[in-house]
Amino acid sequence: MNSSSQSKKPADVRMRGFAARSTVDLAWAWLDSQTICMPSETVPLDGLAGRVLAESIVSQVDVPAFVRSMMDGFAVQSADTAGASVYNPLSLTIAGEILAGQDALGVVRSGQAIRIMTGAPLPEGADAVLPVEKVQIEGTKILALDEVTPGKHVGRIGEDIGVGVAVMNIGRRLRPQDVGVLSSIGVAAAQVVRRPRVGIVVTGSELLPPGSRPFGSKIVDANSPMLAALIRRDGGLPFHPGIVPDDPNSILRAMQESVDVVLVSGGSSVGQEDHAPSLLAEHGELAFHGIAMRPSSPAGMGKLGDRLVFLLPGNPVSCLCAYDFFAGRAIRALAGLPRLWPYRSVRAPLSRKLVSVAGRVDYARVMIVEGRVEPIAISGASVLSSTTRADGFVVVPQDSEGYPPDTVVEVWLYDG
Amino acid sequence: MNSSSQSKKPADVRMRGFAARSTVDLAWAWLDSQTICMPSETVPLDGLAGRVLAESIVSQVDVPAFVRSMMDGFAVQSADTAGASVYNPLSLTIAGEILAGQDALGVVRSGQAIRIMTGAPLPEGADAVLPVEKVQIEGTKILALDEVTPGKHVGRIGEDIGVGVAVMNIGRRLRPQDVGVLSSIGVAAAQVVRRPRVGIVVTGSELLPPGSRPFGSKIVDANSPMLAALIRRDGGLPFHPGIVPDDPNSILRAMQESVDVVLVSGGSSVGQEDHAPSLLAEHGELAFHGIAMRPSSPAGMGKLGDRLVFLLPGNPVSCLCAYDFFAGRAIRALAGLPRLWPYRSVRAPLSRKLVSVAGRVDYARVMIVEGRVEPIAISGASVLSSTTRADGFVVVPQDSEGYPPDTVVEVWLYDG
Repeated sequence: MNSSSQSKKPADVRMRGFAARSTVDLAWAWLDSQTICMPSETVPLDGLAGRVLAESIVSQVDVPAFVRSMMDGFAVQSADTAGASVYNPLSLTIAGEILAGQDALGVVRSGQAIRIMTGAPLPEGADAVLPVEKVQIEGTKILALDEVTPGKHVGRIGEDIGVGVAVMNIGRRLRPQDVGVLSSIGVAAAQVVRRPRVGIVVTGSELLPPGSRPFGSKIVDANSPMLAALIRRDGGLPFHPGIVPDDPNSILRAMQESVDVVLVSGGSSVGQEDHAPSLLAEHGELAFHGIAMRPSSPAGMGKLGDRLVFLLPGNPVSCLCAYDFFAGRAIRALAGLPRLWPYRSVRAPLSRKLVSVAGRVDYARVMIVEGRVEPIAISGASVLSSTTRADGFVVVPQDSEGYPPDTVVEVWLYDG
Repeated sequence: MNSSSQSKKPADVRMRGFAARSTVDLAWAWLDSQTICMPSETVPLDGLAGRVLAESIVSQVDVPAFVRSMMDGFAVQSADTAGASVYNPLSLTIAGEILAGQDALGVVRSGQAIRIMTGAPLPEGADAVLPVEKVQIEGTKILALDEVTPGKHVGRIGEDIGVGVAVMNIGRRLRPQDVGVLSSIGVAAAQVVRRPRVGIVVTGSELLPPGSRPFGSKIVDANSPMLAALIRRDGGLPFHPGIVPDDPNSILRAMQESVDVVLVSGGSSVGQEDHAPSLLAEHGELAFHGIAMRPSSPAGMGKLGDRLVFLLPGNPVSCLCAYDFFAGRAIRALAGLPRLWPYRSVRAPLSRKLVSVAGRVDYARVMIVEGRVEPIAISGASVLSSTTRADGFVVVPQDSEGYPPDTVVEVWLYDG
């Protein structure tokens, strides 16, 4: 027995096994009822890509805010070009020049042309732009070699985006070009969904910190660097102060950090050293513990104060699976992202049978070899290398006993 | 004319228009011949997710490095359990306890059992683990309620990963679970492909810096925040010192920064203020200028010293398109990532015809409405908002004049 145990539950209760396993569907239903989008925060423009809008954006300005030339050429009165062609060049006098960004000072009168650059404001008097390709320059004059109609090559005020136009809706994950649009309408910062802060509580006196070399009966913690990367992928901010000693006081303190989500990895099963479930039951709510799935059937979840707490099995494959099924779903929902897996899926036939057991959901790692789906034979859930050999996974639902060869299955690709 | 121009090329040459447009295929061929993976750098474990391995990883250790229990239970001599069942419980004396991470000190002799936790080293003498669920504890003794075979619930040395096993190959983009595996084999840092440093050179005296509010004949730079986000997405490190004045000396200096790739946006066409192409031709190599595509036909590319230089049109849609077609492809290749678009594609029928012109490649923004692909009607290339309304784009190849309604086309999704 762990002599430092402060738990009030007797060892035989904690070692009793799972009374009744819940189902993935029930756990999802509870989880989805517990997760709403985080409150918002203000983020400056250069940090907005990939973030989720917590406000709808309405343009406060016209883009462009002025009538502008869409071509390099000459601002003219279109009537002056009527009938112009290569065979009938019409002469106009150059009356000035306007560069982009300059205010339009000159006035174009009949018989005149003002040299103008793309994006420059159209001068008074002009109603069209004659492109430079349609002009022959002769000292202080040009010969118009084509005619232009009123408004030709002229951009109107608000043509791209007008004042009051709803540009983007709340809930949108901002793409690179969205940030460009926000910049163009003068947005310096926007309200976006705050990233959930996710505490990683890894326990186990057999564990060495990441970056160590394993020795003796110690193994190196694989879960905290994996979880940190998964949390970042799903829009969360990982917080990992280090490996927590295997005693209830230390674990409880670590679970009570100022975070939005707690991932406890290790000590989440029903062994005598598995303090986390008891602590959660005592100090908060242990909503689920034991789920009909494989691997990661010892997974659990609950609440501690306002924090969502996930009990992830210590073995790395189960940890990944429980994260993928539950914790990732919650973190994405909190971050304002779709609950669904961020993985891309493809459909392909099985190269051989995929065995499961009715009554549980299976998370089967597979490879795709020459267009066919090949289940990876593994001896135990701890074989994390199976998830690096795998191209993805197939979920076998609870009511299925698996699939015969050639069944077309949906594969969720890790590199999605 | 721009009085600060130091270019040796006469204005009429710079305004001559594109002599001969190149094709997208020729530009890609040149680009692919110019881009090889960046050299490597050493990155610590917690920064490895998403990076591309520049070395193959061979395990230097066995995982696990010791014979271990795979269950919570009792280490036993399997022969002692022969015939045990609920109806024939066999008594064994508890001779000690081993927690995970403890070195195995005791010895299991015939008739004895040592309490053992998952992951703990199997003590000498034992050859199997009797799970706690198959045991009744009676003070200092246990009753075995089941029999176990030799090796049952025991993890062998190197069972997950053995010394000398090739764990991951060079060129692999590291997933979260890969970082877990690297941690478990004692890797503290790895050689990964260095991120290319990408300078953003945005010119245009009509431009205000991002975060400004547009006024008068000024517009706000939409391209640099968009490009910075695109560069990060594609594995590069953006470097953007600010808007560069529209004079050749300033532009040349900005293009000569210590970077791997230069993106020049604005001043890349053939207008009189478009200095960048002339500068590139004079001081380096202007490999392509003018490409048979729409939008972004004024795009160009070349080399300045060791730097790859891209001339991106100033208007935001053309800038995005030229980035997507050329600059992004090069940045991804330099970063060790696939050259292909990072966008996911779907196939769906057109809701109405999609018009193009033979002889050029079209980058047509589309929406997907009720499963059908709807081309977005736009008046000009500068309408960046078309790329925020769009769900993605369809590429119409050079030899096509477009597609009639109901043609199934491939849509590249911006949210891929």
